[in-house]
Amino acid sequence: MTAPFSFTLKATDGAARRGEIVTPHGRVQTPAFMPVGTQATVKGLAPGEVRSTGAEIVLGNTYHLMLRPGAERIAALGGLHGFMQWPLPILTDSGGFQVMSLSALRRLEEHGVTFRSHLDGAMVELTPERAVEIQMLLGADIAMQLDECLKLPANREEIARAMQLSLRWAERSKRAFESAERGGRALFGIVQGGDDIGLRGESAKALTVMDFHGYAIGGLAVGEPQKVMLTIVEETVPLLPHDRPRYLMGVGTPHDLLEAVARGIDMFDCVLPTRNGRHGTAFTRHGAINLANARHASDARPLDEQSAHPATRTYSRAYLHHLTKANEMLGAVLLSTINLAYYQELMAGMREAVEAGRFGDFRDETMAGWDRGDISVL
Amino acid sequence: MTAPFSFTLKATDGAARRGEIVTPHGRVQTPAFMPVGTQATVKGLAPGEVRSTGAEIVLGNTYHLMLRPGAERIAALGGLHGFMQWPLPILTDSGGFQVMSLSALRRLEEHGVTFRSHLDGAMVELTPERAVEIQMLLGADIAMQLDECLKLPANREEIARAMQLSLRWAERSKRAFESAERGGRALFGIVQGGDDIGLRGESAKALTVMDFHGYAIGGLAVGEPQKVMLTIVEETVPLLPHDRPRYLMGVGTPHDLLEAVARGIDMFDCVLPTRNGRHGTAFTRHGAINLANARHASDARPLDEQSAHPATRTYSRAYLHHLTKANEMLGAVLLSTINLAYYQELMAGMREAVEAGRFGDFRDETMAGWDRGDISVL
Repeated sequence: MTAPFSFTLKATDGAARRGEIVTPHGRVQTPAFMPVGTQATVKGLAPGEVRSTGAEIVLGNTYHLMLRPGAERIAALGGLHGFMQWPLPILTDSGGFQVMSLSALRRLEEHGVTFRSHLDGAMVELTPERAVEIQMLLGADIAMQLDECLKLPANREEIARAMQLSLRWAERSKRAFESAERGGRALFGIVQGGDDIGLRGESAKALTVMDFHGYAIGGLAVGEPQKVMLTIVEETVPLLPHDRPRYLMGVGTPHDLLEAVARGIDMFDCVLPTRNGRHGTAFTRHGAINLANARHASDARPLDEQSAHPATRTYSRAYLHHLTKANEMLGAVLLSTINLAYYQELMAGMREAVEAGRFGDFRDETMAGWDRGDISVL
Repeated sequence: MTAPFSFTLKATDGAARRGEIVTPHGRVQTPAFMPVGTQATVKGLAPGEVRSTGAEIVLGNTYHLMLRPGAERIAALGGLHGFMQWPLPILTDSGGFQVMSLSALRRLEEHGVTFRSHLDGAMVELTPERAVEIQMLLGADIAMQLDECLKLPANREEIARAMQLSLRWAERSKRAFESAERGGRALFGIVQGGDDIGLRGESAKALTVMDFHGYAIGGLAVGEPQKVMLTIVEETVPLLPHDRPRYLMGVGTPHDLLEAVARGIDMFDCVLPTRNGRHGTAFTRHGAINLANARHASDARPLDEQSAHPATRTYSRAYLHHLTKANEMLGAVLLSTINLAYYQELMAGMREAVEAGRFGDFRDETMAGWDRGDISVL
């Protein structure tokens, strides 16, 4: 599998899209959800288990990996694919988001951002060029431009400044990417502009002119209400080229995914299924279930006897409750697996629904299942 | 597989033995190592992964499970086999050891022991009869008598008193077991007597008269030097019936296993492979390897390319080092798996060696491998 990056739109239903991404490490059916493998591991899960959930692509974090174990080291060890033994596609973020959220003593300049590592306090510089270089060293199938992420709320002037800087960094990222050994890999631009529709439009239009392989919408899911996020998505998507994948970064809940696909998004990543799994929450067809709740203590039923994944249909709620209460590692492992499997089931359901021209019905049925909740037979 | 418990000795080589245990949930080849599943889970590993290491039996902890989630609850949920989805044999300890090591405010009487739960402070009573009842509720294939475990060093008088009490509890355990719904299950007696050979002999002889399905040597690996432990084993084993399995509780390092099998032990359990795995130590043919050590940071070699287990021959030392340094859950999961697989490989090697009448050579070769160490090609 050494085909260069491509994207094919296979079907649409309203704004919702069904597509296929081809990468040097294989194909990804869209809409797609990418499990987050921050430090070269989806937390707690071996690659085979991640695959078992139906995932076709995972996300790696430039920021974390450049600091530990280092991009050059990973390159020498076979790239991120070889290092973590994940043979399928990988997308890496550019580090922009984590520089803003995790590091201290940032100095933001036109040239790039200098920050103090949260691990050892070393001063590290990240420029658009270095971010691309790192992602090529990691061997990402899809790399992201370096951008400046703001926390919302922020004032319009500040949002505009960050968006403009991100555009100039997009240009430099693209130039760096084009002079690198690309090997069929892709680079995505990132639309910024906070919660300001005008600025978002300006960003989307300028990036479209630059002609990226795909387009992300960044700087959302950073504290704003879902309605604001969906409005931004709804207004931004039509400004992006129809023939390129659209990636909503860091989103979200199952409901977010449903609503964003309805508005034309093709790709997602989020820590929710794994992070919340580690804290005892299961995402299911019946909605979110808090397994720490005592009502599950004697419940012999699995979370979903109809699930295609063995973990979801095998272990009793009572056992998952026990593991959660006892703070057992296996609880985190199983609930992460169960949640990723549900996310993938949801994505597969959306893909089928778009193909069948019944996305609206699927959305209604899925939400009705969540609303009906976890009806107990006890 | 609903055959009643039995033990068949298949071969011997010096004092070392090769046998087979039959239980209602299947067969166990001996010498056998039992991974520890304290709270109804081998920490971090799904049952299929435990099985992948070659384990044929796991251990569950009466003390932990009676307190959480409760023996009656587990019974209602299909017993421990159904609860944790482990279909193969299970041995449960009686709780005696954990009462001494984990609980506070113990009151030890002839009748039993009353203690304060380390979880919620509730006062709980454990008697020989209740310990058997709990283990039958859990559905253990092999149950253990309640005993009193002392920490060493202790004075002879105290050791003698605890040993005598354990003998009286053995009698009561046996009576309780015989009036229970046994379903082909087994009950083992536990030899006590600390580091006093005379008391050990007294205990072994009295238990032999009581006619248990198997015999454990308890109260070792509690702080005494390896030489003391092995001397006790060497002196005790000949006093136990030849046609019953012998189980050395809570032992040990790979070297302990080798030396104890050489002295006629058939069964072991120990937290070392999983606990030390969680802390970054791998047990291998090359000895113990501390993966936190910086020398592994760029080492692309797997821990053992000749291992039968994919985890051992697939992931690079550099990756395991990275996961360990980054405190990633997957590091604990993989090293636990790798260590259990090595323990099982060691047991399988010992079984083959006894069958082939070359146990002495196998012991020498194995120890030479450990001594040669982890030769770096870098």
